[in-house]
Amino acid sequence: MKYVHGYDQRENIRLYDQASTLVELLHFDTFYPAMSQVLEPGCGVGAQTITLARNSPHAHIISVDISESSVAEAKKKIEEAGFTNVSFQQSNIFKLPFKRESFDHIFVCFVLEHLAKPIEALKCLKNLLKFGGTITAIEGDHGSTYFYPDSEAAHKAIQSQVELQKRAGGNANIGRELFPLLDAAGFSSIRVSPRMVYVDSSKPRLVEGFTKNTFTAMIEGVRESSIKAGLIDEKTFDDGIKGLYRTTETDGVFCYTFFKGIARKQ
Amino acid sequence: MKYVHGYDQRENIRLYDQASTLVELLHFDTFYPAMSQVLEPGCGVGAQTITLARNSPHAHIISVDISESSVAEAKKKIEEAGFTNVSFQQSNIFKLPFKRESFDHIFVCFVLEHLAKPIEALKCLKNLLKFGGTITAIEGDHGSTYFYPDSEAAHKAIQSQVELQKRAGGNANIGRELFPLLDAAGFSSIRVSPRMVYVDSSKPRLVEGFTKNTFTAMIEGVRESSIKAGLIDEKTFDDGIKGLYRTTETDGVFCYTFFKGIARKQ
Repeated sequence: MKYVHGYDQRENIRLYDQASTLVELLHFDTFYPAMSQVLEPGCGVGAQTITLARNSPHAHIISVDISESSVAEAKKKIEEAGFTNVSFQQSNIFKLPFKRESFDHIFVCFVLEHLAKPIEALKCLKNLLKFGGTITAIEGDHGSTYFYPDSEAAHKAIQSQVELQKRAGGNANIGRELFPLLDAAGFSSIRVSPRMVYVDSSKPRLVEGFTKNTFTAMIEGVRESSIKAGLIDEKTFDDGIKGLYRTTETDGVFCYTFFKGIARKQ
Repeated sequence: MKYVHGYDQRENIRLYDQASTLVELLHFDTFYPAMSQVLEPGCGVGAQTITLARNSPHAHIISVDISESSVAEAKKKIEEAGFTNVSFQQSNIFKLPFKRESFDHIFVCFVLEHLAKPIEALKCLKNLLKFGGTITAIEGDHGSTYFYPDSEAAHKAIQSQVELQKRAGGNANIGRELFPLLDAAGFSSIRVSPRMVYVDSSKPRLVEGFTKNTFTAMIEGVRESSIKAGLIDEKTFDDGIKGLYRTTETDGVFCYTFFKGIARKQ
């Protein structure tokens, strides 16, 4: 691949910097061709399915989740949005009811972080992929979080979330591992690109939409369970949440990185 | 500014991801117009001066450093490379011997991290800038470092470097603060963009050129002084360096982020 210097690339960075929502940052480069069969395992309540359906209107998307109620909710969401290019099915990611090599592409987002055996899951998915097909995996990494002003309590509150997820068999710091995971599962042509969310007060949509309503809200959500599990005391947790909100003031900065890996079955 | 979706932007990310050296990642979008007067305070031995001179062949660059011997070395380097668009001068950044509003642009790279009063320095520089002129500031942030496999000892070795720099009056985690610093110094239209260096074994030039020969070499360089200062013991430090080298193996990943801020005097 050719490296292009100069003004073109200056423009590129400008566009990259400008993504003002998480959806743009993570998904603007995910499109599947007309007629292709795309598997979305672990669709949950359809948060990513909506974007998949919108970006690839002529692909056929099959979205699967282990939870019957999540599948029902995702289906309702997609139907209400008027998309007709998605089918749903309830199933375990390790026992998907599809023939070998039946999909052109696989898209798996915020799923591996919850699995005790992510490499095994990727191998199962690889069996379902046609030769020449691609897998796209997206994961966050809580260890990529830093901010200004710094706050010891905020790091402890985040760490209690990481520890809870670990106890549940998952890995909240899995983003950085996408390359070795895809490699260990036998995929080829692996290309991982970090998608860093950099937020300062010149980006009010990200201050609200990401720092407050996505990241801090997620950490706030584990207050009771992490205190109950003895991972942190109430005061430290609450100081930590205050520390995270403090980064949303005029002089504050918040950084978090997602990783997007694309690889091929060869 | 318009947000552009789709294939153009997919190409953009590809180019961004592809920067295979630090110089490309940090400097490809720094160009100054013909005839403009550009101040580079804290040029050191001219590591960035070379790139400035190459990227802006028709600008006039004035590079200054507090160390007489560094200035001499930078001058020699630039002369040997055949550039004639740079003048050198020895001076303290807080007492630069130039008239108010005498520069069109200022470029300050890896300097603020060493100053106890970075906002005061930026204010001094702002005095020298013409109205409508720009300042470009680039800094790293050691707190942005994470890797796979993780290593507690490696984090401790890095932290000993951060602590040494702090004791010397500096701040090795200053990158994330560029927005509030430029704001506090009174600059306008501040735009900060993170320049994340993501390294896995599919990027051998960065494995060698960045993870080993830039970052790990820098940490190795503080071995004696951090042990002598009692910040870390020998075994932990050496294990930490081993941990950093471990990230350069086939399944390893290394992440570090620089920040580039561009702002205007209005």
